[in-house]
Amino acid sequence: MPAPLFLIGFMAAGKTSVGRSIARAQGRRFVDLDDEIAAMGEPVAALVARDEAEFRRREASALATAIGDAGDGPVVATGGGAASFGDNLDRMRAAGLVIALGVDVGEARARAERSGGTRPLLAQAEALAARRASSYRRAHAVVSTVGRTIDEVAGEVAAVERAWTALPLALRDCTLVALGARSYPIVVSDRVELGDALRAASRVAVITDGNVGRLWGDAVKLAIGRDVVELTIEPGEASKSFSTYERSCAELVARGLDRSSVIVALGGGVVGDLAGFVAATLFRGIPVVQIPTTLVAMTDAAIGGKTAVDLPAGKNLVGAFHQPRLVTCALPMLATLPGRERRAGFGELWKYALLDGRELWRAVDACAPWASGDRGDDAPSELRDVIARSVAYKAAVVGRDELERSGHRALLNLGHTIGHAIETHSGLLHGEAVGLGLVAACRVSAALGLAGPELETEVVEALRRTGMPVDLDRYLVPAVLDHVRVDKKRTADNVRFIAIREVGSCEPIDVPIAELGRILRATTAP
Amino acid sequence: MPAPLFLIGFMAAGKTSVGRSIARAQGRRFVDLDDEIAAMGEPVAALVARDEAEFRRREASALATAIGDAGDGPVVATGGGAASFGDNLDRMRAAGLVIALGVDVGEARARAERSGGTRPLLAQAEALAARRASSYRRAHAVVSTVGRTIDEVAGEVAAVERAWTALPLALRDCTLVALGARSYPIVVSDRVELGDALRAASRVAVITDGNVGRLWGDAVKLAIGRDVVELTIEPGEASKSFSTYERSCAELVARGLDRSSVIVALGGGVVGDLAGFVAATLFRGIPVVQIPTTLVAMTDAAIGGKTAVDLPAGKNLVGAFHQPRLVTCALPMLATLPGRERRAGFGELWKYALLDGRELWRAVDACAPWASGDRGDDAPSELRDVIARSVAYKAAVVGRDELERSGHRALLNLGHTIGHAIETHSGLLHGEAVGLGLVAACRVSAALGLAGPELETEVVEALRRTGMPVDLDRYLVPAVLDHVRVDKKRTADNVRFIAIREVGSCEPIDVPIAELGRILRATTAP
Repeated sequence: MPAPLFLIGFMAAGKTSVGRSIARAQGRRFVDLDDEIAAMGEPVAALVARDEAEFRRREASALATAIGDAGDGPVVATGGGAASFGDNLDRMRAAGLVIALGVDVGEARARAERSGGTRPLLAQAEALAARRASSYRRAHAVVSTVGRTIDEVAGEVAAVERAWTALPLALRDCTLVALGARSYPIVVSDRVELGDALRAASRVAVITDGNVGRLWGDAVKLAIGRDVVELTIEPGEASKSFSTYERSCAELVARGLDRSSVIVALGGGVVGDLAGFVAATLFRGIPVVQIPTTLVAMTDAAIGGKTAVDLPAGKNLVGAFHQPRLVTCALPMLATLPGRERRAGFGELWKYALLDGRELWRAVDACAPWASGDRGDDAPSELRDVIARSVAYKAAVVGRDELERSGHRALLNLGHTIGHAIETHSGLLHGEAVGLGLVAACRVSAALGLAGPELETEVVEALRRTGMPVDLDRYLVPAVLDHVRVDKKRTADNVRFIAIREVGSCEPIDVPIAELGRILRATTAP
Repeated sequence: MPAPLFLIGFMAAGKTSVGRSIARAQGRRFVDLDDEIAAMGEPVAALVARDEAEFRRREASALATAIGDAGDGPVVATGGGAASFGDNLDRMRAAGLVIALGVDVGEARARAERSGGTRPLLAQAEALAARRASSYRRAHAVVSTVGRTIDEVAGEVAAVERAWTALPLALRDCTLVALGARSYPIVVSDRVELGDALRAASRVAVITDGNVGRLWGDAVKLAIGRDVVELTIEPGEASKSFSTYERSCAELVARGLDRSSVIVALGGGVVGDLAGFVAATLFRGIPVVQIPTTLVAMTDAAIGGKTAVDLPAGKNLVGAFHQPRLVTCALPMLATLPGRERRAGFGELWKYALLDGRELWRAVDACAPWASGDRGDDAPSELRDVIARSVAYKAAVVGRDELERSGHRALLNLGHTIGHAIETHSGLLHGEAVGLGLVAACRVSAALGLAGPELETEVVEALRRTGMPVDLDRYLVPAVLDHVRVDKKRTADNVRFIAIREVGSCEPIDVPIAELGRILRATTAP
């Protein structure tokens, strides 16, 4: 039975045009939910203006009918709000594949105005978009429409659907990074879900570190279910070195890997970055499956294909973009995280909350007692949602800006420009340093007049509730600011910096290095 | 004034459909040369059957008219033979952009038969295709149509045209590697032609070796015309090491390169591979411009984006695909090649002749006296054509199979499976070892019944005329065959091997490693 395809997204994202195009090209039935609602007796615009609650009831009912009739695998275009109300989104995900068409708010508004401005709710477009963006990201995948024709978007949606349909059933409840034929799933689950990602491999190598290998190596080998080549590196950032990189490549060749082999990265960000770079370059590139074992790796490092090793001059200065074949996040692995690492993971989670909005912010906050609690404490039920939403945010950004060129992916560097520098010079964990980087981002944003001074207070309190370091001034030594000068995000004399206006509203800006130094030094002056 | 776009290629490649599609999408005039000929009074099929010479005269005349009227930048589809007769191709190249639509002979024949088989000359399709393939490759670019729809081919042609149109005039007489928006030019010229490839770079680094730097460093800096960061490595394969790679990355960061910088690789294959891999991975990838200084680098190593370093277990085991922004081949640089390196370069040239056909074979042969002559001898006029045709062959293959996945790019490994192994264990130059690898390929092809025994004799005599080593048996030590086992082209127990049927007809086959060993060992038995 073919699965139905549901298209969601903001008004004027092109859901109807793209849906019609796909249905026509593939000989499938097309359903426009708004037409079905109108067929109940009243035009949509009039009904929304008269009684929005009644419109939402009819919308849910039309959706139920569409799902009930979906045995022939139709293409269903929904209204801009459908995914945000009731359990509509869950029902669509359970019935088939849900793809959100992503659009810039400004561009959506312009498109809607050009087409006559008769669509409902146009006036409140921006506020609405901010509220709805995170529900759109709960689709299986977000396909960007920015700068693409209808045909191009339809082609990309079809490619993502092919990738999803090729997945075994156990992997379909996932988030996909939409990259055409290279689209890949991220699964958040209670176990390691490998699907058939390793089936055709001539050999499988598992790269892990001593700590993770001791705790989870046997379980993962059991999940893999065949002979593997094991390669264990020293835990810690020092392993992201050229010498570990060289030794790993040489050993894998000596132990029989070839161009048809697959590497499994089992561990946190260090293992993922190193094993990913080995996979990116061994035999000029072989596939990698990421099994992240930390909060930071699950929500950030393992997704998006960034791999790297360090130079003495800075972290991640040498590496490659190499997308994984699959990312499988097994929540029970978080139970064995040392307390400090668990708390540090909240650096990335607070970052996502600042990017995504108040809903995720509250969910992260609900996990604060677990963060500062004891190893082995039961994870709160909100944790799965927190990880899934963070994953979805990252996946949407990567799908739009795979190689960090359009500036859109740069949003993910929120807290990292200063954070990386602090990490290098302090011995703090990555997540702890990112937390301080978030404080720095608040301070710089306030100094530039983009945010109020209360933002920093709110972020500091949030970090404190999750047991993280908050004393930015202590870490702003001169070497940290010098470090920013050789950071790879520097272009000539400016630093690309992610500013925060408020929770859920961040943007990249160029700041002169001198200005950045002035702002941060001023705050540390005696 | 917009330049006209000429589409050439074998019958049924889709020249008319693709041309119409592009003309319609861009609002340009479409000219079908066969229609213009028919308008002279006689249908094309009938005219060809009656008097092919008259058809070719009318075709040349119709082409002259189309070029004379081309002020509005039309899209011109030509007949399958147009590019192969008289100076038609040169006139098209002088007037605008020439793109060949590439097709498998088998697929073209099937398409033509499906469409009714009324096209002229269908019966002799295969012989014709072999004769014409190398003229099609003299287009600015070959766009593959295999497995693509008309719309996809039209989109790719349009992308290549945008890339070509964006070039400064001095670079337009080039061969383009067709890779959509990443298409790039290879220029064969009497000087270094940089166009505006370095204009936007924050910094330019020139990586070269001591020998080349001494001879050509100043001239290249003059051509670049701005301050550069110079990085000089030791000449020789030993520099394709992890330690040189690490030191190069660290030094370039220390000397101020950033994400907006560009690397220029000035040298032979070693410099190109190392500098290319540095560019592929520094800051996760910055652009590289290749200035190859040897015959091997101009015709092979600098084109196609393969970059690598070596492991003790074998050459090129770690690397990346990283396409250059521009390849500029300055012929005068060949004058300073040491005699042995010049002769060794003919290993790749004979390889291309075996792949491309008798026309290139004869041109390479005409350069034999220069190959075995003295340093500083004037290069024969045929050398430019030899290099341009070899470049065109490689560019066409790379455009069809960028990442060496479809098996098509594997053709370029002709002579390399055994050649690489010999190179590692003998101290021979790359080209010398490839020459011996060609002899091995003849021997294996004959043993498998694909070629006659006279092929090896002909290749050995050709190598001898260019002063290259020919005594394969002397180099087939056991270590060479062991080496093939860890070669990166190995998949499980088979080796992907390029067999030769005759000059101009090669194909990839899978040979069991044991069988390969048996064939080659048998010939070295006392």
